[in-house]
Amino acid sequence: MNPIGTRGAGQSREVGTRVPQTQSHERLLQIGRALFEAAGSPADEADLTARNLVVTSLMGGDSHGVIRIPEYLDFIERGSIIPGAAMTVSPRSEGTAVVDCGRNLGPVGATFAIREGIARARRHKVACVITQNCPHVGRLGAYPQIAAEEGLIAIATCNSPISGHFVLPWGGREGRLATNPIAYAVPTGGWPVIADLSTCVAPEGKIRWHRNLALPLPPGWIHDAAGRPSTDPNDFYGPPRGGILPLGGPNGYKGFALGLLVEILGSALAGLSSTDPTRDGNGLCFLVLDPSCFLPLEQFRALMDELAAYIKSSPPADGVDEVLLPGELELRTMNQRSESGIPLDDRTWRAILAHCARLGVPTYQEQPA
Amino acid sequence: MNPIGTRGAGQSREVGTRVPQTQSHERLLQIGRALFEAAGSPADEADLTARNLVVTSLMGGDSHGVIRIPEYLDFIERGSIIPGAAMTVSPRSEGTAVVDCGRNLGPVGATFAIREGIARARRHKVACVITQNCPHVGRLGAYPQIAAEEGLIAIATCNSPISGHFVLPWGGREGRLATNPIAYAVPTGGWPVIADLSTCVAPEGKIRWHRNLALPLPPGWIHDAAGRPSTDPNDFYGPPRGGILPLGGPNGYKGFALGLLVEILGSALAGLSSTDPTRDGNGLCFLVLDPSCFLPLEQFRALMDELAAYIKSSPPADGVDEVLLPGELELRTMNQRSESGIPLDDRTWRAILAHCARLGVPTYQEQPA
Repeated sequence: MNPIGTRGAGQSREVGTRVPQTQSHERLLQIGRALFEAAGSPADEADLTARNLVVTSLMGGDSHGVIRIPEYLDFIERGSIIPGAAMTVSPRSEGTAVVDCGRNLGPVGATFAIREGIARARRHKVACVITQNCPHVGRLGAYPQIAAEEGLIAIATCNSPISGHFVLPWGGREGRLATNPIAYAVPTGGWPVIADLSTCVAPEGKIRWHRNLALPLPPGWIHDAAGRPSTDPNDFYGPPRGGILPLGGPNGYKGFALGLLVEILGSALAGLSSTDPTRDGNGLCFLVLDPSCFLPLEQFRALMDELAAYIKSSPPADGVDEVLLPGELELRTMNQRSESGIPLDDRTWRAILAHCARLGVPTYQEQPA
Repeated sequence: MNPIGTRGAGQSREVGTRVPQTQSHERLLQIGRALFEAAGSPADEADLTARNLVVTSLMGGDSHGVIRIPEYLDFIERGSIIPGAAMTVSPRSEGTAVVDCGRNLGPVGATFAIREGIARARRHKVACVITQNCPHVGRLGAYPQIAAEEGLIAIATCNSPISGHFVLPWGGREGRLATNPIAYAVPTGGWPVIADLSTCVAPEGKIRWHRNLALPLPPGWIHDAAGRPSTDPNDFYGPPRGGILPLGGPNGYKGFALGLLVEILGSALAGLSSTDPTRDGNGLCFLVLDPSCFLPLEQFRALMDELAAYIKSSPPADGVDEVLLPGELELRTMNQRSESGIPLDDRTWRAILAHCARLGVPTYQEQPA
């Protein structure tokens, strides 16, 4: 029984102390790879998808990690994800392109799209790539991270169709936007700065995670269908469905404005209607920038390291051990969970085992230490 | 005596009921134009600057509008703003450029920079322009608005040097970032969507506005120097100085992450140290995108109009009249204040009159109606 990596006081994103079990990342990676391959993915795409989801859980992103393995397999069964599907690039200028992901697995499509953005930013210094037909991509920050590991700055936005419009517009009582995350990553001399934030108080996956563990939500996350505050995750799911508040508390108009930008870049810019009930999956927009067009990359890295040290030199607030940069906690959690294992709720683990049985995939028993 | 344009319940950005006086925008524009010209600006740049600040006040942006006329004139007197200074463009690729604003007035430099971004985005579909030596630019949203009025999407970020690092990093008790706004504008079939938001709970200018009117701050905006919550704007200014909380309340790590991105794009990307005490002014980054590379502009406008109608179709929450899009309240306030005048605090009005006396500029008495 391992504790969930928690933030310091004043930094807690999610509070969980009751964890039914852990599995090693090696075992989950073997199982995930075998499952996606058995479900029809080529070996490299099965590996990419399983690695993406397991690394996300290693980083503490439980709502977007291993919990999605059975979900993606369900989507494959239902035909809304097509493993191994061809992906195509339609360039619109030297710096812009539309990537049609063909309903291949989201992590496969999103990785293909950011690599297109990286290639165009290397040649033309700034690039914008948008996607079509891309299913759920998991942790959005994974894709800017790829760019930052190659010395580029990337900003990513990710919307969802009307079926996921759980988030209330500012001043409204019916959902009109999805959790619409914004992520970015920036190279430094070491681990990149990696930020990944929904533009609402909490992503739907974290509400699901609380529901799966039968934990109450922190106050201020949701309204029930009548527009009243609630801490019961079931009040969100309904039916009738409640709504998630936009980021910002009394400044919620700011979170709403950011979420609206994500919706615009994921829908209208891709020529898609925000209200089309037949759409599914995520709409991505990647903006990629090569800082070396403005100054030598090594000088940029040094300035980033200086900035990081300056930020971290702020004395911590009461009850906080240390000021952390975006992505720093995730790195620490990854190192810790690589040793201690990934905590998994029973519902997810049972769903994974059921898919193993269905697809004839071994469950790769843990080796005794 | 005119009321300040206020947001509906649940939408109030600033609450002010005690307004000493109003002046017509025509009079303020005449005075502002004459003052900047008397202080050394060419006529077109004096007009651009005065118009920028007066329009901002018309839109309800009191903290970034007419209140800055005497401030900019003070900076000119002290030599930190150089009216009429030459501005230069250093292209780094077809889609990227550095604009050196030469310490000309901020609105002049920022307008020059966004126009460079617009020209490059028209040709290459995506552009990134950053600035150097740009003083305070006023309302950041004014610049993406120019792009949106020409059918382009623009995202703008704006940082400030260490002397303005009033905003606490998440979990810290000493300021490490400025209020670091993000703005964007997107064309529609009518008035653009225009969002402009600081990545903290409130911009410094709004705290100053409360101080000038001797109004208490809403709770949750600031900590005093000892790290305790306060509603007294004087506790923020000190000395010793307090700090402004990052956007997000319990999700303040999100506002911190967004503010850090703004700092990176304004400092490290421009080859500047975040801790250089000799720096002043704003560091801008404009990302400009031509949606017509992805779909016909008229189709994009129609999809934006459909999205706007969908958002506004959410039934309003209790006490709210109507769900408003970013920029919609500002348009209404502009229309209203064009009739009723711009409310001004006495400190600002006296400072403007003092500059008129110093520079021999008439005060353009109001004509009786």
